[in-house]
Amino acid sequence: MDPSQVKIPPMKDLTIDNITENVIRINSLCPDPRTKYLFERLVTHIHDFARETRLSTEEWMTAIDFLTAVGQKCDDLRQEFILLSDTLGLSLLVDSIDHPKPAGVTEGTVLGPFHTHDAQTVEFGTSIHKDPDGETLLTVCTVKDTAGKPIAGAQVDIWEGDSKGFYDVQYADRSGPDGRCVMHTDNEGLFWFKAIVPVPYPIPHDGPVGKMLKMLHRHPYRPAHMHFMIGKEGYDKLITALYARGDPYETSDAVFGVKETLVIDFGSATAEMAQKYGVKEGCKTCTYDFTLITEAEANALREEKAMKAMAAQGKKMKLYQGLPVPDVD
Amino acid sequence: MDPSQVKIPPMKDLTIDNITENVIRINSLCPDPRTKYLFERLVTHIHDFARETRLSTEEWMTAIDFLTAVGQKCDDLRQEFILLSDTLGLSLLVDSIDHPKPAGVTEGTVLGPFHTHDAQTVEFGTSIHKDPDGETLLTVCTVKDTAGKPIAGAQVDIWEGDSKGFYDVQYADRSGPDGRCVMHTDNEGLFWFKAIVPVPYPIPHDGPVGKMLKMLHRHPYRPAHMHFMIGKEGYDKLITALYARGDPYETSDAVFGVKETLVIDFGSATAEMAQKYGVKEGCKTCTYDFTLITEAEANALREEKAMKAMAAQGKKMKLYQGLPVPDVD
Repeated sequence: MDPSQVKIPPMKDLTIDNITENVIRINSLCPDPRTKYLFERLVTHIHDFARETRLSTEEWMTAIDFLTAVGQKCDDLRQEFILLSDTLGLSLLVDSIDHPKPAGVTEGTVLGPFHTHDAQTVEFGTSIHKDPDGETLLTVCTVKDTAGKPIAGAQVDIWEGDSKGFYDVQYADRSGPDGRCVMHTDNEGLFWFKAIVPVPYPIPHDGPVGKMLKMLHRHPYRPAHMHFMIGKEGYDKLITALYARGDPYETSDAVFGVKETLVIDFGSATAEMAQKYGVKEGCKTCTYDFTLITEAEANALREEKAMKAMAAQGKKMKLYQGLPVPDVD
Repeated sequence: MDPSQVKIPPMKDLTIDNITENVIRINSLCPDPRTKYLFERLVTHIHDFARETRLSTEEWMTAIDFLTAVGQKCDDLRQEFILLSDTLGLSLLVDSIDHPKPAGVTEGTVLGPFHTHDAQTVEFGTSIHKDPDGETLLTVCTVKDTAGKPIAGAQVDIWEGDSKGFYDVQYADRSGPDGRCVMHTDNEGLFWFKAIVPVPYPIPHDGPVGKMLKMLHRHPYRPAHMHFMIGKEGYDKLITALYARGDPYETSDAVFGVKETLVIDFGSATAEMAQKYGVKEGCKTCTYDFTLITEAEANALREEKAMKAMAAQGKKMKLYQGLPVPDVD
């Protein structure tokens, strides 16, 4: 690079007290206003964290080593940084910000690290698990809009651990997707399949995040649940899960995902249901009506909440591609 | 784990507004007060960052992917997370906090990602580079205490890039240390060796941190310098560097390390020096007197500054193993 092209205001002798403003000034060469704002807040918070804690070099090095180990634990089927974000409550927070739900709309929750993109599209009624030890859970759900109108052709992505509490991706000899599927709602907004009764399980805790939880004296368990991701053009994508009521970890989820509206009581298949859906009478059942918000409604609500939150912080902001940036005119 | 052993206060239905206090409450199961305080501040800042920016799921995922790539770029000879910390100004900040220097003591600066532990211990006068294109720089320095008394037997670790601006570890065919050495001061506090005239160079920018700098429209250059790490029992370890005055990047260092007291003018060897040190007359010279602070003085100063900073923030703190923690009696 030609040194004459340096466009940075001269800086030298940076100290505890003036380094933050200098780093922000350099980063503000960035022409994208949103990126510039994100880095301004990021640098401010990272520096304030170090200043407020008087972070030592040894602690900093421990953090460097930890983050390196988290990155190196990741592969195609394991995302340790998502796990870290989940266990620090960041994932749930971001989901809550990005997918605001007015009353009556199904709440979202953490995606978690186990969603994959290789699940097969299946017909209604399919047993999504090969697990011979799983107790069948007949699952019959609908997807509707806020007016109660069925949404046909919505894509529903489902993933669930097995009877031992493991997802397919946690087995070293995984040969393909298991305990997961994709289906599409019919004209009544209905979809149904055979899952298994979910069990509580620990998030993968053989890596750096597990060590962190142990150091914090936290348990790594999630209450029993089944994941759903529901999308349809024109609607805000719903990432959620249904939780089994009464689970011992219902109020201490390691990733903070449980919401009362997503906790359900399993039912029991009547003779009529048993015949209709091809299960045994008395088979456990999971029924739920998912309600989606349109993308337009979600965008309007997200923007309204963003501007309200900014105003509450006393910040003069405007929207740029739907996200807040400083209004500097 | 036995669910009856769950020691977490019941939580459910966490929202944008209450998740932070809940995550902090869970983490406060940690018995170590310093770790607990670090996590309290960390979670607060990460969550505030997301709330203040209204971080979107897409932006969050970009960050997850970025951090993963940073971790995966690391290996035994490359530390991309240190590079990230350096380019965000965090490394210099932490060094300034951890190694306070009263007036008259040599200032510290960023360690950077190129220090290794395999440098050989050499005799005075050694040429530390095999580089045939480097211009010899006779380097003659002393190490003294704040009273001006020589410190004998201090271990001095030196590392420097070559004439092309690369450190040995940046060469794929590196067979061993080059451009680095360890020596020990004599009874006069003296050490001397032959380096080469340093040149400005870009920090490694073929990885995720390089992409980040490009996105921010920042250049990756560091002004020409040579690194020194000086340690002796009873003294605060000095991590510093000397910078060549007039370098085109002197006031725009990509990692914020330049301090006026560390910028030097190279001299020229007199006939007498040439004979004494076995170099050509007119050979460039680098001379510097390093001043170390004792560990006891550094600890006292660090603790004093920490408590002052805490008081300025209105926080009631106490010291725990030399670092601040909340004073909750």
